[in-house]
Amino acid sequence: MIFLSVDDVVVLLNEIGLDTFLTKVITSLKADFTRWEDFHKSARHATHYPHGVIELMPCADQQYYGFKYVNGHPENPAQDKLSVFAFGVLTDVKCGYPLLLTEMTLLTAVRTAATAALAATYLAKTDSSRIALIGCGAQSEFITLALKTQFPVKEVVYFDIDKLAMKKYARNLESSGLKLTAAKSVKAAVKSADIIVTATAAKLKSNLITTDMIAPGQCFLGLGGDCPGKTEFSIEVLDHCKIAVEFLPQSLIEGEIQDYSADKVHAELWQIIRGIKPGRESKEEITLFDSVGFALEDFSILKLIYEMLQNGEIKRGTSLAIVPDITDPKNLFGMLS
Amino acid sequence: MIFLSVDDVVVLLNEIGLDTFLTKVITSLKADFTRWEDFHKSARHATHYPHGVIELMPCADQQYYGFKYVNGHPENPAQDKLSVFAFGVLTDVKCGYPLLLTEMTLLTAVRTAATAALAATYLAKTDSSRIALIGCGAQSEFITLALKTQFPVKEVVYFDIDKLAMKKYARNLESSGLKLTAAKSVKAAVKSADIIVTATAAKLKSNLITTDMIAPGQCFLGLGGDCPGKTEFSIEVLDHCKIAVEFLPQSLIEGEIQDYSADKVHAELWQIIRGIKPGRESKEEITLFDSVGFALEDFSILKLIYEMLQNGEIKRGTSLAIVPDITDPKNLFGMLS
Repeated sequence: MIFLSVDDVVVLLNEIGLDTFLTKVITSLKADFTRWEDFHKSARHATHYPHGVIELMPCADQQYYGFKYVNGHPENPAQDKLSVFAFGVLTDVKCGYPLLLTEMTLLTAVRTAATAALAATYLAKTDSSRIALIGCGAQSEFITLALKTQFPVKEVVYFDIDKLAMKKYARNLESSGLKLTAAKSVKAAVKSADIIVTATAAKLKSNLITTDMIAPGQCFLGLGGDCPGKTEFSIEVLDHCKIAVEFLPQSLIEGEIQDYSADKVHAELWQIIRGIKPGRESKEEITLFDSVGFALEDFSILKLIYEMLQNGEIKRGTSLAIVPDITDPKNLFGMLS
Repeated sequence: MIFLSVDDVVVLLNEIGLDTFLTKVITSLKADFTRWEDFHKSARHATHYPHGVIELMPCADQQYYGFKYVNGHPENPAQDKLSVFAFGVLTDVKCGYPLLLTEMTLLTAVRTAATAALAATYLAKTDSSRIALIGCGAQSEFITLALKTQFPVKEVVYFDIDKLAMKKYARNLESSGLKLTAAKSVKAAVKSADIIVTATAAKLKSNLITTDMIAPGQCFLGLGGDCPGKTEFSIEVLDHCKIAVEFLPQSLIEGEIQDYSADKVHAELWQIIRGIKPGRESKEEITLFDSVGFALEDFSILKLIYEMLQNGEIKRGTSLAIVPDITDPKNLFGMLS
């Protein structure tokens, strides 16, 4: 089993370039969402605590089995810890043996951004140039740069209740070529934006976005509402939106639509990508991609990384001796002598 | 995160001694089954293929979250691979960060043997001295030695359709002090045994044990029937047995009782350990521990190993850099600069 540490992933993202890598991930996601029926799919396995959640997210096709371990602990940053930590594993379906173990804290941010940007190519106006970003946490720069690979983005208007997070965001993207405008409120940021990203961490039904803020033609990418009791949009806003989700059975548990009705959901993302259902149909429509994060996205980036290791595009990684090396597979006990 | 390789686990089992370690695991399992209500429990997540199965087995209390990845590929040995490979992870519930990654191919054999031996202390006659072992695969020596820690075992009568596996079994246990008797058939092995272990790998409803073989007072430990379509006992045999299982919702899917009736199951193991339901009540009863392997057992051995690392009883392991080391948890992107 190859192991990619955090340092390995940092180096490979820098060597390949984040923009190039995001584009590769978007291409991989599009190909995998297109072959939706190929996958063993299930809602993730979540263990809930009052202070957070721990999840396993498996997904597999006929060649690879992948899963991610990921937590969500909103109070972690107060203890100088990440609210989301993750790692992922890819294994060989033929024999069940492991192929890859990798850090996925960074890769989760990448795949979440790539998935939302992919969805936006179907749900946002193609000439979208003005982004609103609500929530300047760990996800914020990644989604900004992912959208920049797909749209002619000129300006980002950003807001966070944490002013230090806003400063951090502006500093990190100062050389991005984007016009970065700090907003004084959610409402001010959303106003006249083409694409609005919400990525806040509070575990509550926040009504961050209300009907008085929204305008015709906008595309909302809701990244923050991703577990029971955690949403960012009021029910009234949902009534105004054409809604796309990743995997309906999971989104009904965890997404913005957790208190809403399944029959008001327009489509699963794969149906739009495949052309079974339309994406945006007019300049006036308001659209919402209700992203909770689906295991297929982790599978797709794990497979991409593994294939890049195989073809030499990625040269990092160390080998972990986790599979018993024995000549007689019935003689496991013989290892002890 | 501490990583224990296969070599690390081999060395620690040899240093501690397998008998001593089995006894520790049995003690740990008994303590954890006793506090049954403390755990987040669920049937394992299984992805089925025609040639095998891949599973995730999570279990958690208020302090630790553990899970095991494990496959079951009966045709693997024909390709010189193990039919079962596994690894496990323990994490910190407080923050979701990982503590331990360990090989669990060996440790699964240990915990399966320890759980069955623990169950047998309630279900078999206390003076059981004669063991029958059907299936001389990877599990066989471990369950033999685990039973030896709990019963005055004198003789093991063993059988496998693979004569090489039988020879391997006898060779591995030649210095165990046990009288080892090769049997010519399942029926011959089962005859006049006190405890009968079945641990065969074929993925089919095998009717390995039929009513003409069984006798009053016997205790069956059914280890091999552990996924849909894979059983070792005929329905008629089940009718004669007082049956204990690990976790009823999972056993109804995967166990010997998959085509049977929940209301004919006597108890979950924890109920017997806690004294809520009786174990063996007479010398004549025939009992069956229908073992499929439950995530709590993996949790228990992961926790034991981690605590032995913490208190210095285990001195092996290397550190894996899988958690981002950052000062500002909202500045994940900053790692790239």
